[in-house]
Amino acid sequence: MKQLLLIGIGPGNPRQITLEAIDGLNRAQVFFVLDKGAVKDELLQLRKNILERYIDQPGYRLVQVDDPLRDGAASDYVGAVQDWHQQRAALYASLIENELADGECGAFLLWGEPTLYDSTLRILDLVQARGVSLALEVIPGISSVQALAAGHRIALNRIGEPLTVLPGRRLAEQPRIDNLVVMLDGQCAFAALDDPQLHIYWGAYLGTADQILIAGPLLEVKAQILAAREQARARKGWIMDTYLLRRPL
Amino acid sequence: MKQLLLIGIGPGNPRQITLEAIDGLNRAQVFFVLDKGAVKDELLQLRKNILERYIDQPGYRLVQVDDPLRDGAASDYVGAVQDWHQQRAALYASLIENELADGECGAFLLWGEPTLYDSTLRILDLVQARGVSLALEVIPGISSVQALAAGHRIALNRIGEPLTVLPGRRLAEQPRIDNLVVMLDGQCAFAALDDPQLHIYWGAYLGTADQILIAGPLLEVKAQILAAREQARARKGWIMDTYLLRRPL
Repeated sequence: MKQLLLIGIGPGNPRQITLEAIDGLNRAQVFFVLDKGAVKDELLQLRKNILERYIDQPGYRLVQVDDPLRDGAASDYVGAVQDWHQQRAALYASLIENELADGECGAFLLWGEPTLYDSTLRILDLVQARGVSLALEVIPGISSVQALAAGHRIALNRIGEPLTVLPGRRLAEQPRIDNLVVMLDGQCAFAALDDPQLHIYWGAYLGTADQILIAGPLLEVKAQILAAREQARARKGWIMDTYLLRRPL
Repeated sequence: MKQLLLIGIGPGNPRQITLEAIDGLNRAQVFFVLDKGAVKDELLQLRKNILERYIDQPGYRLVQVDDPLRDGAASDYVGAVQDWHQQRAALYASLIENELADGECGAFLLWGEPTLYDSTLRILDLVQARGVSLALEVIPGISSVQALAAGHRIALNRIGEPLTVLPGRRLAEQPRIDNLVVMLDGQCAFAALDDPQLHIYWGAYLGTADQILIAGPLLEVKAQILAAREQARARKGWIMDTYLLRRPL
């Protein structure tokens, strides 16, 4: 049997990692690191730093592979993602086959929380469906949503109020926004909103030394966020951001 | 100036605490512990264990106070909660006034994530509105929602799908349930649902040695969950549980 840990390592601050995650790092012999595009080099280095800092015994192996890119032009979003997941499942299956021996423990180091808008668990389900036998374990991590709320010192929900978290591409279809967290919004869907009641709490590179926080009435700070976002993205080559939209009661 | 840390200590597993939280424990001189009702003794002991385990220097002070009970019979839920929060704000203001000296650092140890269905931050905003000057800092923690997903090894969302988190009392009014996490459901609102399509992933005492996990089609496992819940509650005197409801695609 092969064991595989999905370790949430937090949003980027190396102190925002749990002891359980550090225990996991020390149980694994092989680390799989898959990135793509512009984030690759910097995020790889941050993960290497985490391994060096927290693993007591040397001798672990790092398996670094380029993740396939998704067809961003496809008209059927869910279908395109499913195809992409199958490609990744084939890749992950061959990695596990070739790089992890029976009885060994492998690990994926995942930013934030492994069960929130991260596809690794779903892809490993597909790997198992292909007949690869695995003992999976999930170790939670602090998500960027939590780092956002902590940075702004706000509660994610008000009294008795629901909280919805969704990807940016689903924002435009929301009939009414009361209290909503948006993740994975590379297209800045908030910029299309013109409701004068909404407030935004925005953050980028949360938990890292590059963290940026901006909050205020959406229409007043929208341009400031777009400018800060563009400037940071141009400087670093990539950006990860998330935000909460709230209608005052 | 007085400093106050809201430290998320995770759902109950002492390894599910972050290094940032441990840093916070070691910065504080005074710990405020407020509980109420049946959970009090056991949860107080768990927190004392965390302090003893993770604080390097002895000499910290523990201030333990009974939290006021909310008027559960009031017809106006939000109004009753607001009144209760004002009572707690008066209590917290006097604690901070009397137990924390200028220049000292105090801390609240909060189960799970301090910004998700926890009122401490809201109450400290009321304390500040009463004129008490505070430097507040929020340190995220692993929430029971994350421990639930990790325990069941499921992602909280499917591809591109929104996730809604809400308190049990808001469940009945949901027009349609696709993918929903319910917290604070002392009344077992799931028991009133009779949609044969729904699946439930339920967990209690998540992250602790008493953890219980049950999953399956809601109508098939509902009675099993209710029985397990009642048995555990009778044995321990209290229960904390959370669950995810999902409609298969």
